[in-house]
Amino acid sequence: MSSAVASIVDMNLKAAMERIAGEIDEGFDRLLAVPDDGRARLYEAMRHAAIGGGKRLRPLLVAAGCNLFRVDRGSAIRVGLAIEAIHVYSLIHDDMPCMDDDDMRRGKPTVHRLYDEATAVLAGDSLHALAFEWLVDPATHADPFVRADLVAEIARASGPAGMAGGQMMDLAAEDASFDLTGVTRLQQLKTGALIGACLESAAILGHVPPEGRRPLRGYARDIGLAFQIADDLLDVEGDAEAAGKAVGKDAAAGKATFVSLLGVERARTQAAMLVEQAIGHLASFGAEADLLRQIARYIIERDR
Amino acid sequence: MSSAVASIVDMNLKAAMERIAGEIDEGFDRLLAVPDDGRARLYEAMRHAAIGGGKRLRPLLVAAGCNLFRVDRGSAIRVGLAIEAIHVYSLIHDDMPCMDDDDMRRGKPTVHRLYDEATAVLAGDSLHALAFEWLVDPATHADPFVRADLVAEIARASGPAGMAGGQMMDLAAEDASFDLTGVTRLQQLKTGALIGACLESAAILGHVPPEGRRPLRGYARDIGLAFQIADDLLDVEGDAEAAGKAVGKDAAAGKATFVSLLGVERARTQAAMLVEQAIGHLASFGAEADLLRQIARYIIERDR
Repeated sequence: MSSAVASIVDMNLKAAMERIAGEIDEGFDRLLAVPDDGRARLYEAMRHAAIGGGKRLRPLLVAAGCNLFRVDRGSAIRVGLAIEAIHVYSLIHDDMPCMDDDDMRRGKPTVHRLYDEATAVLAGDSLHALAFEWLVDPATHADPFVRADLVAEIARASGPAGMAGGQMMDLAAEDASFDLTGVTRLQQLKTGALIGACLESAAILGHVPPEGRRPLRGYARDIGLAFQIADDLLDVEGDAEAAGKAVGKDAAAGKATFVSLLGVERARTQAAMLVEQAIGHLASFGAEADLLRQIARYIIERDR
Repeated sequence: MSSAVASIVDMNLKAAMERIAGEIDEGFDRLLAVPDDGRARLYEAMRHAAIGGGKRLRPLLVAAGCNLFRVDRGSAIRVGLAIEAIHVYSLIHDDMPCMDDDDMRRGKPTVHRLYDEATAVLAGDSLHALAFEWLVDPATHADPFVRADLVAEIARASGPAGMAGGQMMDLAAEDASFDLTGVTRLQQLKTGALIGACLESAAILGHVPPEGRRPLRGYARDIGLAFQIADDLLDVEGDAEAAGKAVGKDAAAGKATFVSLLGVERARTQAAMLVEQAIGHLASFGAEADLLRQIARYIIERDR
């Protein structure tokens, strides 16, 4: 292992999270420069939503996955920015009154509250388009096959067969009587698909052929579900101030969640089991996968 | 010229429009098959907005541009479907109550009226993601450079530096006192950028290097402005039934438009001049550009 790689995996999780948070904020700051015309408000709204705050879990997963294959850090950060832009656009739209109707996000007013609903729609749409523009920029990767594959993976994971489809099922969940299979399927689309795309993108950047991606796919599937169970637990037990958003909303809406179906104790056990299973998928990797192992544990220990 | 190309350019505009309308409807029908799960409503909403109706001007421009470079019809149609999906997503979002608040579109109820606002947000977001997924599919073009270039062009034209940015400026236009330069700039972003992307995509598919695209870019810029002036004239003089949507909205909102700034007569003269100028840009092409010439004339003669 090169000393550069060793120094990255030696950093503890906290340092890795601080590092990626700085890189993502710097990247958004650079890529979302406010123009001096009638679009200034649009860019200010995008900056409000994208810069500062958030766990940056998705870019962290891209970067940690890229550690396995010695991918150039610049490529990893650009892909992390694109996936985070997709995540942020989905938060802006999901927070709107016609969807989850949230006033606070990441400890700040939501975009439609600070600006207005029209600006929220357009800021989300703009980040959505920019994500794909950034991905296909030669600065992301010299190989056009890689750039096209990244777009294919991230578009699929965020569209109706992934995130947007899961959000649609979630809206229906208030009426429908979902069982555990139904909630699992819903969450695999709503949050799991984009988390999976983080690891899949790392494999694409690392020129890993599809047949070699099985461990990473297993890891992604397991932490994706663990992440959602932890989210459901935080919604029940969490603190709105630490979360930076409203809590207790699922129960109030009568939604079927992992916690409503399993109960708190079994949900917590299930999440811990999934994390161990996720780490098990990484058995063929050495210390270069330590950051992925730490992220898996963090996912169920976080307080937001 | 091959006989296949000759037969295409010999068809009159009406036949070309009917042909492309059938191909686009068939393509959406195939690509938007309704899944048997909680996402059925999302797909039905996308199908409602995407299938049937609309002039299909953008796919027609892609196909007519592709005639110049003997691009495979299948590639042209797939790119036309992607750009039309972007156009349809923008209509769904723009029609929402927080934006233009329209009840009718293409002679049918708008998505948020027939379904609900949350479904409208997600149907738009889903078509947006699918457009990029379709573009990078190898079925669109074998060359990944071409696929990545198409994504770059269409993402730029539809994002904050294009369509979404123009829509933001348009929302501000009700307060602002725009002059002719301001309205021209706004419309070049709001509608001109995506119309430009249709011709630019044809050039990308035809492997035309950027320095060879000047005639097509001039043509696109001129018909884009003529199209918007014609739209403004239809909003003043048009018939809601023929248009399939409400008319007279700009004046009611006190918006600066080409017609409010130039008056009806000068606006009509300006549009006719732009069309002749657009056709002038095609002087180096022969009969293979006849469809583009016919489209330019149609743009100011249409009644919807």
